[in-house]
Amino acid sequence: MGNFKEDIAKVKAFVFDVDGVFTDGGIIPLTNGDFIRQYNSKDGYAVTYAIRSGYHVAIITGGRGESLELRFKMLGVTRYYPNIADKLSCLKEFMDELSLSPDEVMYMGDDIPDLDAMKHVGIPVCPADAVSEILEASRYVSQFKGGQGCVRDVIEQVLRAHDKWAKNTKGLHTVKSL
Amino acid sequence: MGNFKEDIAKVKAFVFDVDGVFTDGGIIPLTNGDFIRQYNSKDGYAVTYAIRSGYHVAIITGGRGESLELRFKMLGVTRYYPNIADKLSCLKEFMDELSLSPDEVMYMGDDIPDLDAMKHVGIPVCPADAVSEILEASRYVSQFKGGQGCVRDVIEQVLRAHDKWAKNTKGLHTVKSL
Amino acid sequence: MGNFKEDIAKVKAFVFDVDGVFTDGGIIPLTNGDFIRQYNSKDGYAVTYAIRSGYHVAIITGGRGESLELRFKMLGVTRYYPNIADKLSCLKEFMDELSLSPDEVMYMGDDIPDLDAMKHVGIPVCPADAVSEILEASRYVSQFKGGQGCVRDVIEQVLRAHDKWAKNTKGLHTVKSL
Amino acid sequence: MGNFKEDIAKVKAFVFDVDGVFTDGGIIPLTNGDFIRQYNSKDGYAVTYAIRSGYHVAIITGGRGESLELRFKMLGVTRYYPNIADKLSCLKEFMDELSLSPDEVMYMGDDIPDLDAMKHVGIPVCPADAVSEILEASRYVSQFKGGQGCVRDVIEQVLRAHDKWAKNTKGLHTVKSL
Repeated sequence: MGNFKEDIAKVKAFVFDVDGVFTDGGIIPLTNGDFIRQYNSKDGYAVTYAIRSGYHVAIITGGRGESLELRFKMLGVTRYYPNIADKLSCLKEFMDELSLSPDEVMYMGDDIPDLDAMKHVGIPVCPADAVSEILEASRYVSQFKGGQGCVRDVIEQVLRAHDKWAKNTKGLHTVKSL
Repeated sequence: MGNFKEDIAKVKAFVFDVDGVFTDGGIIPLTNGDFIRQYNSKDGYAVTYAIRSGYHVAIITGGRGESLELRFKMLGVTRYYPNIADKLSCLKEFMDELSLSPDEVMYMGDDIPDLDAMKHVGIPVCPADAVSEILEASRYVSQFKGGQGCVRDVIEQVLRAHDKWAKNTKGLHTVKSL
Repeated sequence: MGNFKEDIAKVKAFVFDVDGVFTDGGIIPLTNGDFIRQYNSKDGYAVTYAIRSGYHVAIITGGRGESLELRFKMLGVTRYYPNIADKLSCLKEFMDELSLSPDEVMYMGDDIPDLDAMKHVGIPVCPADAVSEILEASRYVSQFKGGQGCVRDVIEQVLRAHDKWAKNTKGLHTVKSL
Repeated sequence: MGNFKEDIAKVKAFVFDVDGVFTDGGIIPLTNGDFIRQYNSKDGYAVTYAIRSGYHVAIITGGRGESLELRFKMLGVTRYYPNIADKLSCLKEFMDELSLSPDEVMYMGDDIPDLDAMKHVGIPVCPADAVSEILEASRYVSQFKGGQGCVRDVIEQVLRAHDKWAKNTKGLHTVKSL
């Protein structure tokens, strides 16, 4: 394990958990079986910007629901794995398919189901309010809490390391025809 | 009353209020008679983990509503008592049915309707933002506010006392077929 | 104007604004013409408790919407005045009808449309995050922000002054058949 | 560039982004294609007050959705530009149409898609939690975060500079017949 600033320059792919990472952990069950989650517009901008800049972005979540999938499709995420209990196996399949080595992957999680997967990648990171086991396993703890910009924070850092951040100041239309 | 750390090792059952404990007290009435509440994913993980580890978990609430019931069914809670004004009587029935003694029960409440029930158990606890009467009656005040992880906090403490916490790092599928 | 603690002992009636007082000011417009607002369960308990203890509670708001009315009906509020631009006139009618003198009325508002009405009563009060004009016009500024317990705070203070608070520790069923 | 307090006295028009300015950045996608956003009642009051006091108010947003449009129509905003990727071109058209010079326009944005447009006006301002590029480009950073009163803050400052704030203490009915 080398210098963090140097190591993030190797990152080609981002893997994110959803609840507690893209959100503050808040979840509202609806009686129709769906769930309401509140996302952050600054995180969303960064995800779409990263994908259009050539990075891989995967979502591996124990959550599920129609609006959850809709959110990530709109941001342009094609590698979306919902309802996953064994996140490590899912991560390995994703990495194998794209021939990614551990030091090319940044993984951001916040709770115990993320732990094994985070230990498998070179750059495990987490929000400020992750649980103790995850804080200990992370190489970087964002100053931002889940849902308050932690995703934006780590994407920005990687893209800045590659001098790719904020090169296009136009807005990024998300996918509309869903 | 002995040492708190020793006493929580006797706990076999958790009883929780909902509004102000699982939530920040926020409640959104809908015109169809239901209510929207926002829960916390870290609390939910802990509740399901505790149940699968063999603890009893009961919900005694003055609240009601279809999505309230749905939330706890999904977490695997089978002892769910909504619309309760006399919480002490409800608690006694629950304890009698399972032959639980007061020192085997942890009760977390946040407001005056929880007071009599909390005085009946061995381990009354509360969120950081409980009302003054409840703060005074509690043996432990979580550093976390309602809806921000106070449920997770106390479940973790009891399971750690039994060396049962974080023994399974897989995700816990909640009940889906509802 | 006398001592605040003595003066609140004269209070027989509470008048509340809604947005920024019962809520944090957050408002979610729905396309069906209704609005979603998030209320606080601790405030709701205090309102119902005050009404059952014999106090008058009036809601005077510039807001409107089906779920707004539903919320206050459920709490047992019968004096509900929505969609009011001229709050002072509405307040005067309410006070005349019940033959209330200014020193018997506590009014909690947070923004400029509440200003004239607040100047008309003996006990104008406000949340911690009221606007500057209201902070200046208030005899008491709650330590709690709108939606975070400011209503509960002032009701508790008045009822404690009358030794009427927390005399009944049962839950208070709200009105269900609406 | 002169003194900020003197310069805001030249302002005749306000341009606002939505996500992260009128809101905390939180966005809830619904499966019907609409999005839920939470607005702030104090911001809404200020926008309507400014329009009735003769100021131009424009909304230029990359966002879209039926309830988004509804919100601003209700506040009386007639210049509403949704789904805009190139905000600078949209701003120029708005300014040309009303023959506004840059020093007559205050623009509040929070993220990179606002950057070029903000550099085009005389008074670029932002919420406390804007991204770094926007903080640097702003002449004034509100003490309030997005969704927590930053819009109210800057409208108040301009109207106070013209001695036009709080001259009418009645409530402002928003547009109802939509």
